Amino acid sequence: MIIVMQPGAPELEIERISDELRTWGLHPEKIVGQYKVIIGLVGETAGLLPERIQELSPWIDEVVRVEQPFKRVSREFRHGQPGEVTIDTPNGAVVFGEQHPLVVVAGPCSVENEQMIIETALRVKQAGAKFLRGGAYKPRTSPYAFQGHGESALELLAAARAASGLGIITEVMDTADIEKIAQVADVLQLGARNMQNFALLKKIGAQNKPVLLKRGMAATIEEWLMAAEYILAGGNPNVILCERGIRTFDSRYTRNTLDLSVIPVLRKLTHLPIMIDPSHGTGKSDYVPAMAMAAVAAGTDSLMIEVHPNPAKALSDGPQSLTPERFDRLMRSELAVIAQAVGRWPQVAVGV
Amino acid sequence: MIIVMQPGAPELEIERISDELRTWGLHPEKIVGQYKVIIGLVGETAGLLPERIQELSPWIDEVVRVEQPFKRVSREFRHGQPGEVTIDTPNGAVVFGEQHPLVVVAGPCSVENEQMIIETALRVKQAGAKFLRGGAYKPRTSPYAFQGHGESALELLAAARAASGLGIITEVMDTADIEKIAQVADVLQLGARNMQNFALLKKIGAQNKPVLLKRGMAATIEEWLMAAEYILAGGNPNVILCERGIRTFDSRYTRNTLDLSVIPVLRKLTHLPIMIDPSHGTGKSDYVPAMAMAAVAAGTDSLMIEVHPNPAKALSDGPQSLTPERFDRLMRSELAVIAQAVGRWPQVAVGV
Amino acid sequence: MIIVMQPGAPELEIERISDELRTWGLHPEKIVGQYKVIIGLVGETAGLLPERIQELSPWIDEVVRVEQPFKRVSREFRHGQPGEVTIDTPNGAVVFGEQHPLVVVAGPCSVENEQMIIETALRVKQAGAKFLRGGAYKPRTSPYAFQGHGESALELLAAARAASGLGIITEVMDTADIEKIAQVADVLQLGARNMQNFALLKKIGAQNKPVLLKRGMAATIEEWLMAAEYILAGGNPNVILCERGIRTFDSRYTRNTLDLSVIPVLRKLTHLPIMIDPSHGTGKSDYVPAMAMAAVAAGTDSLMIEVHPNPAKALSDGPQSLTPERFDRLMRSELAVIAQAVGRWPQVAVGV
Amino acid sequence: MIIVMQPGAPELEIERISDELRTWGLHPEKIVGQYKVIIGLVGETAGLLPERIQELSPWIDEVVRVEQPFKRVSREFRHGQPGEVTIDTPNGAVVFGEQHPLVVVAGPCSVENEQMIIETALRVKQAGAKFLRGGAYKPRTSPYAFQGHGESALELLAAARAASGLGIITEVMDTADIEKIAQVADVLQLGARNMQNFALLKKIGAQNKPVLLKRGMAATIEEWLMAAEYILAGGNPNVILCERGIRTFDSRYTRNTLDLSVIPVLRKLTHLPIMIDPSHGTGKSDYVPAMAMAAVAAGTDSLMIEVHPNPAKALSDGPQSLTPERFDRLMRSELAVIAQAVGRWPQVAVGV
Repeated sequence: MIIVMQPGAPELEIERISDELRTWGLHPEKIVGQYKVIIGLVGETAGLLPERIQELSPWIDEVVRVEQPFKRVSREFRHGQPGEVTIDTPNGAVVFGEQHPLVVVAGPCSVENEQMIIETALRVKQAGAKFLRGGAYKPRTSPYAFQGHGESALELLAAARAASGLGIITEVMDTADIEKIAQVADVLQLGARNMQNFALLKKIGAQNKPVLLKRGMAATIEEWLMAAEYILAGGNPNVILCERGIRTFDSRYTRNTLDLSVIPVLRKLTHLPIMIDPSHGTGKSDYVPAMAMAAVAAGTDSLMIEVHPNPAKALSDGPQSLTPERFDRLMRSELAVIAQAVGRWPQVAVGV
Repeated sequence: MIIVMQPGAPELEIERISDELRTWGLHPEKIVGQYKVIIGLVGETAGLLPERIQELSPWIDEVVRVEQPFKRVSREFRHGQPGEVTIDTPNGAVVFGEQHPLVVVAGPCSVENEQMIIETALRVKQAGAKFLRGGAYKPRTSPYAFQGHGESALELLAAARAASGLGIITEVMDTADIEKIAQVADVLQLGARNMQNFALLKKIGAQNKPVLLKRGMAATIEEWLMAAEYILAGGNPNVILCERGIRTFDSRYTRNTLDLSVIPVLRKLTHLPIMIDPSHGTGKSDYVPAMAMAAVAAGTDSLMIEVHPNPAKALSDGPQSLTPERFDRLMRSELAVIAQAVGRWPQVAVGV
Repeated sequence: MIIVMQPGAPELEIERISDELRTWGLHPEKIVGQYKVIIGLVGETAGLLPERIQELSPWIDEVVRVEQPFKRVSREFRHGQPGEVTIDTPNGAVVFGEQHPLVVVAGPCSVENEQMIIETALRVKQAGAKFLRGGAYKPRTSPYAFQGHGESALELLAAARAASGLGIITEVMDTADIEKIAQVADVLQLGARNMQNFALLKKIGAQNKPVLLKRGMAATIEEWLMAAEYILAGGNPNVILCERGIRTFDSRYTRNTLDLSVIPVLRKLTHLPIMIDPSHGTGKSDYVPAMAMAAVAAGTDSLMIEVHPNPAKALSDGPQSLTPERFDRLMRSELAVIAQAVGRWPQVAVGV
Repeated sequence: MIIVMQPGAPELEIERISDELRTWGLHPEKIVGQYKVIIGLVGETAGLLPERIQELSPWIDEVVRVEQPFKRVSREFRHGQPGEVTIDTPNGAVVFGEQHPLVVVAGPCSVENEQMIIETALRVKQAGAKFLRGGAYKPRTSPYAFQGHGESALELLAAARAASGLGIITEVMDTADIEKIAQVADVLQLGARNMQNFALLKKIGAQNKPVLLKRGMAATIEEWLMAAEYILAGGNPNVILCERGIRTFDSRYTRNTLDLSVIPVLRKLTHLPIMIDPSHGTGKSDYVPAMAMAAVAAGTDSLMIEVHPNPAKALSDGPQSLTPERFDRLMRSELAVIAQAVGRWPQVAVGV
């Protein structure tokens, strides 16, 4: 349930209402929008009559029941206003959100060594990326496959961050690792296979680094939003949703089926920013540019693209990685023209 | 197997080689490309040595085995050259193909009455559509649902064609109906549920109207191309492939999952033109514009969009139909900017 | 909507009520159950008040609305009573239904030559099968694959029928072929790829041979029942539903995923008899016996099992065919013990 | 790669060979089968010639390469011999394996209070169950749903164990909880949503309680076996595989699609014991008996069935829980007859 306050409602009145609601056993959350303040209510509201709340104050404009099973992540919970997630990086704050330019995250599947990660960071930064991705802990189907370099890779990510000024996004796979990863990462990634790892969702919700929540391979949109709800319910409002392809009956030519329709669907359902990962989504570098362009045209707020200095020799996911040269071209000509066409390119590029 | 002829190979030599191959029990097909002529070979070629063919003539440049199970529809069968499908309409010839402007097909799910179909035809033509879609025979899950007006609807389509000059695309559901539908339609649509109706594929391959082949709800890309192969093997080379959403585990917010990755995948595998139907693909009119824009950015050759003068009162598929006003806006501002950005808009629109 | 008559309701009264309802624009159908007569009502019943019908006669026990979208096939339409389908074969009438012994259908994927089909017919008859399956017209993914011997295969099926006394089940793929196939077949099979070929469903509903309706590869249970509804609505009540595996994300070890849960689900929803095809369902002969046993334990009314005298040389579907010897063993020891345990074996076998 | 020793090979020779192989950087594992000893080899064996190993000793019968990506769990790794998992419970040792009687696990979805869990334990024990299931930590889609009573529920499970003598199976969701759960549980359950939680798999592989590994909702059989491989590679050989229904396109009538074909498929691929969970598999108590019977007929080694004293008031999964009375009947008449028919019932029941 949400309480929409009238414009100009005094701060004191908002606090008074919130205090009163706490005595009813509810958890009010103040959301400051562009024009008005909303009080979001979570708790046992099913039996509560909106009229009873309305009577609490003449400054209350309306009381609306959130019909979705997801509350804090729902668009209704912000009375239709878009949200945004702001992340501080050495190069400055970067904002993810539908009223902001496209943010591009790039980098290798896994951190292999110092030279490759720093080289890649500098290359993708130059091409326009704002974040470096790179796995230290890797979820691998086989116990005999390369599992990531772990802690030592975290140090290399820190070095790449220092060298490039890019923000760092890397995956957390175990509740026991959150703290040490959070010392290096600017965004904690929760991977597809862990989307319903509820222990991890709860602990990640209880700390304050922003979170990139990938959609599970066979997760419905509702389950995905409920997973995000775990994080917001834990107290962490900074969640970005990342579509990375779902599992369907056909994996002959693509590794997964990239579900771009989540872009308009999520836009209606939630205020959280959206990211698309065409690298995992297709599993083949040849198909990445077309799907990246499509994602931007459909309105994504950000893209995650795998780039490796030498895809043929990558320790993991080589076939879906772009070379730095191909990534340059994607950014400079393909994405720039589409993002400009929809008004989401960082600046008007000259001479494109 | 294909035989690539050297540039300038004499016509007589090509005929001589073809005649020789016929005596071997093979079916040679001459394909005239931009720079060279290819002879496509279908038949029992598995045991045939390329060298034996090579010896037939010094004008033969190379002999290449087509590795795919689909032959005539494969890109290899044209030695990598794109194909195109040209369709004569009262307003002139329209070409579908990757080196041509985007072609938009629009219209209602089903033909309801004369006024609505003619009005819709005129409206979508004005907005830039080149073809009118409209069902006379409708595949419906329930025997008690509206089944289309059948033959009388064909007459109304003929009237709409005459009034607007648009080409007509309408669905064939039974081998017995092909002839009468072909008298009105410029393109015969073979629907998703009939994609593996092999009796229909064979008969449609044996007549000469161009065919729009929709992907089956759970058809792999390979099965889809094999279905197209039936039509080409029957003698009809004019096939357009239309993606309309596949069935996945989630249909809570969208009716199907529109698989836009088919665009780059098909581009590699086949020379046939590609169409995307975001109306069936999403099942909700709200999501159609974003997915139409995405499809154009990803490189589709054409779009099929449901438009109905009064979606709320449509006899079928109302929720996924755009109003004519919304369609106007989609064409004028949304699709125009994306299609211009990728160089696929019919003409440079002034003042967009 | 259904009208349940009181036991002993006079025939004349039932006719009077039916006549009256016809004047209301409805289509009453008399269903004679074990203890009472039901009048099924199809047509525009949505706005009809049960009370108004109740007033028609004191012999009416109750009037019940059928809540499912499928009417004639629903269990409610028979007021919970199971249906049965009786088929005359040269060896006598065979009844498919939950209160009858298990019926086994066996034979090759396709009819290859006279010797193989007659030999197979005699072998499977001896093992206890009541019907011979065998394709004359084959739905094949590739136009270059063996398409079945067509009409000449129909003659061979007729010969096998004469030689063995078994009933014949064979597939119809085109409305144009129904008549000639119906001259030979005792049951017309409508294959998975044609489950929503509505033209074929309508024409098959308009003739009187019993129908085996296979579930489409990605058809929901509701769509499957609606397809059956087309046939019953056309006037043909003799439909058997056959599950043959659905398409899922995993086809590495099995060709399809055999969905045995349809057995208890269909039992609740419909009065139509159920058949399970573990051969297509798994695609591997090794897995057929276990799944056949499971199907019987779960309550199937019949089984369809592919048997070929020489699976390694079969023109189609060899890997999923049992040898006659393996089929003998399956019938004699594996199926017999399970079917006896659940009270569905034809007779108490001696010495098993 | 595996080394099959000749019958009667001296213990000392086996050790000598193993020591030698360790010097090659490999990890030999001795597997004592019914008739012979096998040495399983894990490590960099790809470049190793079987001949080189063969030369190590005349007592070596043959050296076979394991072709599957999964090694220790593969059937080949035991040279085709079935494995078994023996678990000590207060009532004695229980063996899971294809050469042993059916083992039934029963109990509520979650532990609600002392009375209900003890009552249920005593009831299901009396009916023939050997293990009590019951969740202390529950994976729930919504953060606002009942999450299990956690540690206090573990104490209640201990009390139920003491009262009934049944073994306890309960779920672990976080690496941090393993130790305390292992103090109470006889088997640690790894749930479907955590099947690819690799951090958890590794830590569960490093401790010695037996593990019940549920198949992920959209996990392929190969991924499932690779997840089990993580546990065996960690040093814990006692893994039972549990199918609990997969996610498909149809969830209208069943919650998941129970994939019973895994029974014959796993039998070929692995030596690990198999469990089927028809409660989650169907999601509706009405369908549980038919699918449980089917699973036994297909050859499952064990069943997991949800039983709740009052399903209508269950805090979770009520609709799929049987009442104790229905469970009694299932065990006494339905499962007994099928399990006896296939020779898997604990003892010959008198008078069934």
